[in-house]
Amino acid sequence: MTTTAEQAPAVLSSYVCGQWWAPENPSKKTAVLDANTGEHLVDVSTEGLDTAKAIEYARTVGQQNLGELTIHERALKLKELAIYLNSRIQELYEISFATGATQRDHAFDVDGGVGTLFTFSGKGRRELPNSNVIIDGNVEPLSRDGSFIGEHIYQRIPGVAVQINAFNFPVWGMLEKFAPSFVAGVPTVVKPATPTAYVTEACVRLMVESGVLPEGSIQLISGSARDLLDHLDYRDHVAFTGSAATATTLKKHPNVQEGGVRFTAETDSLNAAILGPDAAPGTPEFEAFVKIVFQEMTVKAGQKCTAVRRVIAPQAHVDAVVEALSERLSSKVVLGDPRTEGTTMGALASKEQQAEVRKAVQRLVDAGAEVRLGGPDGDTGSADAEAGAFFAPTILSFDDARTPEVHSVEAFGPVTSVIGYTDVAEAVELAALGSGSLVASVATNDGETAREFAAGIGAHHGRVHFLNRQTAKTTTGHGAPVPVLVHGGPGRAGGGEELGGVRAVKHYMQRTAIQGSPDLLTAVTGVWHQGAAADTVTREDVESGAKKHPFYKSLAELKVGDQFASGLRKVTLEDITEFAEKTGDKFYAHTDEEAAMANPFFPRRVAHGYLLVSWAAGLFVAPDPGPVLANYGLENLRFITPVTYDDSIRVTLTAKRITPRVTDEYGEVAWDCQIHNQDDELCAQYDVLTLVTKTWPMKEQPEA
Amino acid sequence: MTTTAEQAPAVLSSYVCGQWWAPENPSKKTAVLDANTGEHLVDVSTEGLDTAKAIEYARTVGQQNLGELTIHERALKLKELAIYLNSRIQELYEISFATGATQRDHAFDVDGGVGTLFTFSGKGRRELPNSNVIIDGNVEPLSRDGSFIGEHIYQRIPGVAVQINAFNFPVWGMLEKFAPSFVAGVPTVVKPATPTAYVTEACVRLMVESGVLPEGSIQLISGSARDLLDHLDYRDHVAFTGSAATATTLKKHPNVQEGGVRFTAETDSLNAAILGPDAAPGTPEFEAFVKIVFQEMTVKAGQKCTAVRRVIAPQAHVDAVVEALSERLSSKVVLGDPRTEGTTMGALASKEQQAEVRKAVQRLVDAGAEVRLGGPDGDTGSADAEAGAFFAPTILSFDDARTPEVHSVEAFGPVTSVIGYTDVAEAVELAALGSGSLVASVATNDGETAREFAAGIGAHHGRVHFLNRQTAKTTTGHGAPVPVLVHGGPGRAGGGEELGGVRAVKHYMQRTAIQGSPDLLTAVTGVWHQGAAADTVTREDVESGAKKHPFYKSLAELKVGDQFASGLRKVTLEDITEFAEKTGDKFYAHTDEEAAMANPFFPRRVAHGYLLVSWAAGLFVAPDPGPVLANYGLENLRFITPVTYDDSIRVTLTAKRITPRVTDEYGEVAWDCQIHNQDDELCAQYDVLTLVTKTWPMKEQPEA
Repeated sequence: MTTTAEQAPAVLSSYVCGQWWAPENPSKKTAVLDANTGEHLVDVSTEGLDTAKAIEYARTVGQQNLGELTIHERALKLKELAIYLNSRIQELYEISFATGATQRDHAFDVDGGVGTLFTFSGKGRRELPNSNVIIDGNVEPLSRDGSFIGEHIYQRIPGVAVQINAFNFPVWGMLEKFAPSFVAGVPTVVKPATPTAYVTEACVRLMVESGVLPEGSIQLISGSARDLLDHLDYRDHVAFTGSAATATTLKKHPNVQEGGVRFTAETDSLNAAILGPDAAPGTPEFEAFVKIVFQEMTVKAGQKCTAVRRVIAPQAHVDAVVEALSERLSSKVVLGDPRTEGTTMGALASKEQQAEVRKAVQRLVDAGAEVRLGGPDGDTGSADAEAGAFFAPTILSFDDARTPEVHSVEAFGPVTSVIGYTDVAEAVELAALGSGSLVASVATNDGETAREFAAGIGAHHGRVHFLNRQTAKTTTGHGAPVPVLVHGGPGRAGGGEELGGVRAVKHYMQRTAIQGSPDLLTAVTGVWHQGAAADTVTREDVESGAKKHPFYKSLAELKVGDQFASGLRKVTLEDITEFAEKTGDKFYAHTDEEAAMANPFFPRRVAHGYLLVSWAAGLFVAPDPGPVLANYGLENLRFITPVTYDDSIRVTLTAKRITPRVTDEYGEVAWDCQIHNQDDELCAQYDVLTLVTKTWPMKEQPEA
Repeated sequence: MTTTAEQAPAVLSSYVCGQWWAPENPSKKTAVLDANTGEHLVDVSTEGLDTAKAIEYARTVGQQNLGELTIHERALKLKELAIYLNSRIQELYEISFATGATQRDHAFDVDGGVGTLFTFSGKGRRELPNSNVIIDGNVEPLSRDGSFIGEHIYQRIPGVAVQINAFNFPVWGMLEKFAPSFVAGVPTVVKPATPTAYVTEACVRLMVESGVLPEGSIQLISGSARDLLDHLDYRDHVAFTGSAATATTLKKHPNVQEGGVRFTAETDSLNAAILGPDAAPGTPEFEAFVKIVFQEMTVKAGQKCTAVRRVIAPQAHVDAVVEALSERLSSKVVLGDPRTEGTTMGALASKEQQAEVRKAVQRLVDAGAEVRLGGPDGDTGSADAEAGAFFAPTILSFDDARTPEVHSVEAFGPVTSVIGYTDVAEAVELAALGSGSLVASVATNDGETAREFAAGIGAHHGRVHFLNRQTAKTTTGHGAPVPVLVHGGPGRAGGGEELGGVRAVKHYMQRTAIQGSPDLLTAVTGVWHQGAAADTVTREDVESGAKKHPFYKSLAELKVGDQFASGLRKVTLEDITEFAEKTGDKFYAHTDEEAAMANPFFPRRVAHGYLLVSWAAGLFVAPDPGPVLANYGLENLRFITPVTYDDSIRVTLTAKRITPRVTDEYGEVAWDCQIHNQDDELCAQYDVLTLVTKTWPMKEQPEA
């Protein structure tokens, strides 16, 4: 790791309070070695680091700087950061080899981490408002007259997002937590695991050098942070990834137990891959299943919390699975230094891990496992298992599928146990013996089998991956958490939840119920609520020039509550008949008086719902070129009171939600639209979605 | 409490494993007294109760029986239960007086509890599917070709919902937790607080007598349940309400700490009511504010976890608040036995509580409080504070608003502390000194002030209640949790979340990411996914009589994946022009070639989006009377590729989600609708919402 050795001190740096810092001559330090060669790379120590100051810095400077940006502005910064990291990604690859990671592994850790930034950048801007208040769900009427209403909002937590990470994904493990907390507006303090902290440090160095991130949004504590939790309280969030034992220790901290620190854990679990009863040898599902298990055993040398630890196969196919898997592992795995040509699997992350995995495999053997490949001292080929932390791919099988160790002892390396089942019910039971897992795969091409498995094992898992011939080539795999889906699981898996697109952003926010008048809730959320004050413009106002139609206001002028109210327009039987003829929609409710009257919901022939919305557009539209560029959609349309012939309708259109885009010269405006009849009964309501320019005329034409 | 004395044994019964049970001659028991008179009502003991058996019974019989029903079926049972309880509500009133509750208090505990059942019954049926799989959010594409997709589902947890309740709401406290867990399909075990357990017991007795609930769905442990947590694991959920100290003890249980028991706590907090800077004496907000604080001090004699403990007022108005509040309390509160005519406030729940409140008030006095009304030994009028647990309404004021005890010592009775602030920023700081609360009220009629308070205090609270002249008469109040909004709060409030409509149902479910082919995800969820197999019918099929149009299939025949595919229809310039004329929608993109071409999104004049959806209906509709009764709405309409003149469009309509109603002879069917052009480009997509009969002809006409 010559790069770091040149640039960094012998003791790995931390980044706190806007500065790089390392202890000068620490009395205690931990040596970190190259996993493949045993070379001494760097020492790790935080002796003398003022953690309290770092937390306070995040709470003040970090919160302040992040709070000056909106969700979209922060999300856009993630994209800029990702582009910058991509431009220097080779540096991260080079450094990462020393952890035992191959180039293929880099795709998961380094590229996976950068990809997560891109995903959260896009999701944040597409699915969240460009403000700092996210509305959750619908308005709830709390009084008959509509004067008192309630709803839910999300706002960022007023503290710090602390991440305590595992050694196996020094880049992805940080970025998958950083991305959502950053979008939420919460400053991060990263505590990486010592054995691979130098990779995290290199990545944070690039993040700081990018100049993209507001000061205080990220800090790094490279090494022990025993007193970290002493300084946290209910405003803060700790996301832990690592062993269940450490998670338990942290959960016992009084600030978690009594102080209300938000604590989530994502720990290793005994993930299962289940071969469906239909997925016999020879089927595409069988082949895909073996590939998936192979991949999980070899990527990161099996050091993934999502790796397959238990293969659950129909009793009759256990041997076929073992054989196919052995064959594949034997022919494809070349252990060695990942920097050496031809290597397909590197070392475990450290000698300590190597010893741990060996011990775990021995425990499984002692519990009755038959070693079908590899084993505690399996052949590592030309890779030196003394100097480097190499471990041979290992397949164990058990006659007794309920051997407790199968479902509780985790060998965190290229190791899997194969057990057999008789029917789906038993497979479900066996899977549940894992006491809660991150993920399970089920290989089946039968819908009913998939349904049964989902119903049986779903609630014991954070993710269930169904594999069949259609997805054999396109699946993202058993083990790979994707940023758009949640990652985590109940029970042994830690009970936490990460990722899942904007769900993860909300993990760094507080959901608060708010109650009050429509006016006050409009003020609080920035979104217009029915019943709130409106600035009404009529057709007459527009024609007389007294007031501007809201469609002629650019985002620079438009305010929520700007409203257009049309006059009444009468619907005749001829209109309905003609609409039926022209559109072809001759549904009897519009064309057959007797049949319409027999329908339980209609008084007689009624106007088409589509006639109403079409006419409504005719009633509210401002026809000339202006800031409203297009109507790109409609939401939540409900037809309420039917409109029959000789009724009249009018429409009220109110600017409800304004979302200027951070990357374009226009933005989205959602308009609350209500259609009433001549008796002021509500006939239909919906949101009209439009694109509106920031200025008029536009500064710059958007691309079509 | 003669009713119970006649019907129940001297030791209060538990209801476990489908049977009423009480120990015969327990060596240890706790005497429960009438809070007003000190009369010995009943003893409480669970000596010899087999808790493990009760948990196992819930996990087996309870899960089994509840799992045989759908969400809607269970939700409907809640309504039936509520109707039954209402028919016998007088019995619950009679019993509840002994707890010190007045008839007004019953409205919160008894009626509030029954009302919560009604709410969850309605919400469950309106907002959740009629199945046991809830889809959360959108489908996420995970491969370019659409063969591999992901999404999230909720399924019930495979264990038990244990509730450990506080003494102050023996009915509501049980039902507000029971309702959502029952809808989710998770069996409940109730552990009430000893001082008022006899009211809970009476309510459970009625619930069992109703015959509405499947066996195993509710059990009651009337008394100590020290070993309850020993039998729980990651499949189970514990919802605790009570003191922070007890919550901490429970959280330390190894099954919570290491075993993954889902544990949420709702504890008391130092809730604030803030008088806005604009809400000076003489304003309607000032008057409403005083009424709200009065109500919170006197309802349930202030024994509400949501009661106002801190009044934060502009420094200049502190005395005015104290005086107005004193005046109101002095003139309106008549302490006494609630069964006595004229009583407006009863006793605290027990002599122990009386002693606790006295001690807490003394601590506040020792910390510098000035007693403005009442006090540790305040005048209880004609109520005998020796025999009964009466306590005088007490107002304290503090010169130093930052006195730590104001923000940390909770007097759980009719007691409030008044402090002053200088500006909004200081009021926000003072509110946050409570370290996380259930609820805060803010009295203001100014939108910007409301916005500032929401941004400042929102994330420290579970609920923020804005009070102004518009809501003075219609507000549900500061303290009353409403079933449609979340109840809970961060930090001192316990960090939990209850209620909130269907959000609460999901607390008893596991969110699981599922990945696979559209076919398998369709099978797992029962909802058709784009890309999954479909049973396609064309116009020709219908006309030749070869196949039935899906609109002619009742719910008895219709399956998800039933699809109608139309032929192409050409759109001419005349069609567009005529549509513009008829509807009045002469937006330039449809009427002015040059202006349309200048628009960044359109190639030239284009068809109205409303023309497309109107024509689409014409293309897919089956005109004759049949099972499809009405199109009641539309969801998620997006216009994608513009349609210009001489383009042609075709429509594909697929039965996506079928929701038979449990109370009607029809149900909802959502149809996936896609409009393509002659080049197979997607022009628009949306969901069409229809009502479809269960059989055709219908068995029974629904009411219009």
